[in-house]
Amino acid sequence: MHGLLTDLYELTMSAGYFQAGKSGDTATFELSIRKLPQSRNFVIAAGLAQVVEYLLTVRFSAEELDYLRSLPQFARVSSAFFERLCEFRFTGDLFAVSEGTALFAGEPVLTVRAPLMEAQIPETYLLSMIGFQTLIATKAARIVEMAGGRGVVEFGTRRAHSPEAGVLAGRAAYIGGCLGTSNTLAGFRYGIPVYGTAAHSWVLSFPDEMQSHRELQKLLGPATIYLVDTYDTLEGARRAASLGPPAWGVRLDSGDLIELSRAVRSILDQAGLHEARIMASGDLDEYKIRELVAANAPIDAFGVGTELATSADAPTIGAIYKLVELEHDGVRRYTAKFSEDKVTLPGAKQIFRFPDHDVIGCASECAPAEALLRPVILGGKLLEPLPDARSARAHAAESVKKLPEAYRRLKDAEPYPVRYSPQLQALLEQARRSV
Amino acid sequence: MHGLLTDLYELTMSAGYFQAGKSGDTATFELSIRKLPQSRNFVIAAGLAQVVEYLLTVRFSAEELDYLRSLPQFARVSSAFFERLCEFRFTGDLFAVSEGTALFAGEPVLTVRAPLMEAQIPETYLLSMIGFQTLIATKAARIVEMAGGRGVVEFGTRRAHSPEAGVLAGRAAYIGGCLGTSNTLAGFRYGIPVYGTAAHSWVLSFPDEMQSHRELQKLLGPATIYLVDTYDTLEGARRAASLGPPAWGVRLDSGDLIELSRAVRSILDQAGLHEARIMASGDLDEYKIRELVAANAPIDAFGVGTELATSADAPTIGAIYKLVELEHDGVRRYTAKFSEDKVTLPGAKQIFRFPDHDVIGCASECAPAEALLRPVILGGKLLEPLPDARSARAHAAESVKKLPEAYRRLKDAEPYPVRYSPQLQALLEQARRSV
Repeated sequence: MHGLLTDLYELTMSAGYFQAGKSGDTATFELSIRKLPQSRNFVIAAGLAQVVEYLLTVRFSAEELDYLRSLPQFARVSSAFFERLCEFRFTGDLFAVSEGTALFAGEPVLTVRAPLMEAQIPETYLLSMIGFQTLIATKAARIVEMAGGRGVVEFGTRRAHSPEAGVLAGRAAYIGGCLGTSNTLAGFRYGIPVYGTAAHSWVLSFPDEMQSHRELQKLLGPATIYLVDTYDTLEGARRAASLGPPAWGVRLDSGDLIELSRAVRSILDQAGLHEARIMASGDLDEYKIRELVAANAPIDAFGVGTELATSADAPTIGAIYKLVELEHDGVRRYTAKFSEDKVTLPGAKQIFRFPDHDVIGCASECAPAEALLRPVILGGKLLEPLPDARSARAHAAESVKKLPEAYRRLKDAEPYPVRYSPQLQALLEQARRSV
Repeated sequence: MHGLLTDLYELTMSAGYFQAGKSGDTATFELSIRKLPQSRNFVIAAGLAQVVEYLLTVRFSAEELDYLRSLPQFARVSSAFFERLCEFRFTGDLFAVSEGTALFAGEPVLTVRAPLMEAQIPETYLLSMIGFQTLIATKAARIVEMAGGRGVVEFGTRRAHSPEAGVLAGRAAYIGGCLGTSNTLAGFRYGIPVYGTAAHSWVLSFPDEMQSHRELQKLLGPATIYLVDTYDTLEGARRAASLGPPAWGVRLDSGDLIELSRAVRSILDQAGLHEARIMASGDLDEYKIRELVAANAPIDAFGVGTELATSADAPTIGAIYKLVELEHDGVRRYTAKFSEDKVTLPGAKQIFRFPDHDVIGCASECAPAEALLRPVILGGKLLEPLPDARSARAHAAESVKKLPEAYRRLKDAEPYPVRYSPQLQALLEQARRSV
């Protein structure tokens, strides 16, 4: 991974730490969800696997270092710093909650403890990777919940914020509960099931719709999903039905999905195709899916693109990465920010998950509850292979199922009870007094 | 570039074209902006350089082909198809508008003319790359316009939809008019100016703020930008001012920016630091910047992150990629989609830019106006190196400046006049009748 894929100030600060003789200080940084995304009541943590990959492989190439040397911001930096960057490796520790865990406002997703420079440089990458995948896994969990057992497939790479974001969105959406993705590279890389139908261009490429349907069936057999709205939806469905089995079914991509799905269902049934299914797509989100389900529209699966791959109603997440402890010459200092509207809590932490509430405490505390932050990397070495996307997905499903319905509502849900331990509160007061 | 970075259906359709003997058909696909993003009145086209890189390098590796062979959707596909994919190269033509061009609803950004399969597979990548960069360049243009000559720097990688999206956001924001980006890899790859200040962790890592300021000045000299809000903004600014020159100035990242910038300005002036500047950051967007500028807040530069790198108020763009022509055995057919709410226009097109309106016509037409779509790749070969990001930025500035103010308002601006040529309208009627 490119060391340069970070904000410039991470690198200038690292040079400053180095020159001030602080690069040997041991820092503890915490990545936490300061604020939940708009109209979310929980998030599903995701992105840890890519964070681990980054930490284990981040390097600076000779060309990258030459580039840094050429920048005016490094004019006063000694060559010893660039030699240090040339050998840059992450040698520290990473503690993190498992992918698929439901989290709430204020809770840490991960903690990095490492020599100051090694903990500082990853900030930008970690925030972006965890923030994005968490956003998408969370959106997927909402959509899947509203689909009430009907399958949801992620279709959004074309609307994702770059092709690579599309690959990661496919992964995160799967963790959040989707059946799979249309992104073939996500399937290849992460072993996620891939799905697809046909585009309007398929239909248009044949002189008539009937022929396009016939060729699709020849190609895909029982996996055939006819796209029927290129010219006239009902006529398209009649043509598809006339071909008989095998086929999975049809896809509706425009128009009034409640009316059309009913009409198409009876076309399929009248042709004896009771097993044939209906997939709906076209600017769907959790609210529209809830309506379709509430109206008992005979839709068996949903393809969700734009809204899912961009979390369009809440495209940002308030994740932060803050220095919470620093050891210099064996002396540990607990740090916190007291800016007007942005106070942070000092010290390395632990989340204790009780059956009906969470307690955020100090990392050194014990409690009769599940401790969510666990060691992942120690001394630069991965402790054990991470669970794959399939396991993370199962964990997410379980994690959401445990939340009482009141906390899972689409809007205006009750905030989940998260408390701070007395020891953590005392540490905050201590840090405040010391400033 | 990975051939698999596409939707599965692009690949199954390609297999179908191949098996139906249509892979030699010459297809023309058009990527256009069906709908402008919410509250946008124009977009700034961006992302062409990465599209060209993709088209010139897209390949399928042996492992990728093995993966495809293992999928149930390819169970009925002959091995000849995989042999074809193994040799897959883009051998077609690409016509596109230059990066930095202002475009309006309905206008094509690019046209791909190639053997059907070669034009189909790139759909997903092209939509995502052009859509995302166009979204960000557009957002940047709005923000830069409201900054009224004050510098704007893109700071948003940590909020971008994945780290790689952050690199591309830095590029697109620069094209849209930002001075540069904090993303160091964007600087390295695209030759974009990079900027940075210091984070709260810098201040917290020293036992006191004064020492952190002193070390920053030692490190950065005239490029020093003190972050002053870690504990108390005015006190932080007084400490910074007490150090005297050299320094660029200070950054405010929280609180009431109008009040604070005035108070900090007088602290700097009282210390005789009339040259020292003030940068503001913290959840800024074009609306907040307009307010700050209208209030005459003494702010010299803006750092914009979240809102810019995600285009948060309008995170999606209605770009589409549609088959508009198909030649089979020397016979050309013009194609269009007539779905209820999603009609498309047939035939390869040209945008003619007149001084006060645009005309979308057929590619074969001539008009006494600038023709915006120009050949970029012919027969799989790049005609000439593309303009770099700096040239695209200059072109964007010029393109926006030419738009009368009525079309550049932040909200409720008048739609720019875009007409269809009579010949194009006749072609649509012809295609409709032929269905």
